[in-house]
Amino acid sequence: MGRWEPDARGRLAKAALELYTQRGFDQTTVAEIAERAGLTKRTFFRHYTDKRDVLFSGSGHLQELVVDAVAGAPEPATPIAAVIAGLDAAAGLLQERWPDARNRQAVITANPELRERELIKLANLAAGIAAALRDRGVAERAANLTAEAGIAAFKCGVEDWLARAEPDDLAAVIRESLNELRAATETL
Amino acid sequence: MGRWEPDARGRLAKAALELYTQRGFDQTTVAEIAERAGLTKRTFFRHYTDKRDVLFSGSGHLQELVVDAVAGAPEPATPIAAVIAGLDAAAGLLQERWPDARNRQAVITANPELRERELIKLANLAAGIAAALRDRGVAERAANLTAEAGIAAFKCGVEDWLARAEPDDLAAVIRESLNELRAATETL
Repeated sequence: MGRWEPDARGRLAKAALELYTQRGFDQTTVAEIAERAGLTKRTFFRHYTDKRDVLFSGSGHLQELVVDAVAGAPEPATPIAAVIAGLDAAAGLLQERWPDARNRQAVITANPELRERELIKLANLAAGIAAALRDRGVAERAANLTAEAGIAAFKCGVEDWLARAEPDDLAAVIRESLNELRAATETL
Repeated sequence: MGRWEPDARGRLAKAALELYTQRGFDQTTVAEIAERAGLTKRTFFRHYTDKRDVLFSGSGHLQELVVDAVAGAPEPATPIAAVIAGLDAAAGLLQERWPDARNRQAVITANPELRERELIKLANLAAGIAAALRDRGVAERAANLTAEAGIAAFKCGVEDWLARAEPDDLAAVIRESLNELRAATETL
């Protein structure tokens, strides 16, 4: 029971996503996830708090990556250019995970509680980006609005990307979203 | 107990907001709200599901008002002009409620669970606006991004408005936010 299992975390995540996709999130138990991964429930709880955590355990890493990229964008950079640096970092992380990301999205879309959690994740990301912009000297309102614009483009861009037949360049798809957001507000 | 109480709903809402502001949301009980309003717990539960519901029971009305205004914006209107019609309707509703809205915001900001509920309210509002735009013939991606831009401007605009020393014209403050959002993405 206590012995080390090679890549237990990854195996559990893979098994969980398969079961959530096949049976639905609510219909899957931790015992079933552990069994499919060839591991025990005890090992599951050594890696994840609960079933939901499997889907959101990457949020902290994503947030760190994005906020660091916004904070570290080389000067001089406009606020939106710093935000784009952050979104590019997020795109790089997601780009290689296309099939899993599609399955994850389908599971989340089917479940109201998971959709709420995803909203909170994005709101935290927006708040983190806004804080990083303020640290760069951007005024509060501009920081908030630039961060919100970036997250709107990220959200719509990722949805668009996941709906495509092939894994296109996510960074470019997010940039298209941002261009469309700009075009939408230009006709004011 | 069963008799009709004049404006029971409004009295309960007022008492609840006072108690949430003074003692905190978690520290207030339904019994205390009813007592302060001079009513019974039974009357409370005739009007509201729970303590949280007092703060969010207006969401449905707000959503209806905004979505109807977007849907009913006279042609020809650009997508963003239709969204602005919706935001103006929301501003009209909130404009007269400045002191209560400030107290409500402070209560929500202090409580993570209430902040999550507020995020969900805004996400529902964005989804409703996007659906109304699609019904006007706007393509899906443009509809989603225009709705997200509008909600970002609404959220930041309302926060800005509530932070001011006096109740300025909310519709104008939201428009300023939208202009700033445009300016932020223009420097792309």
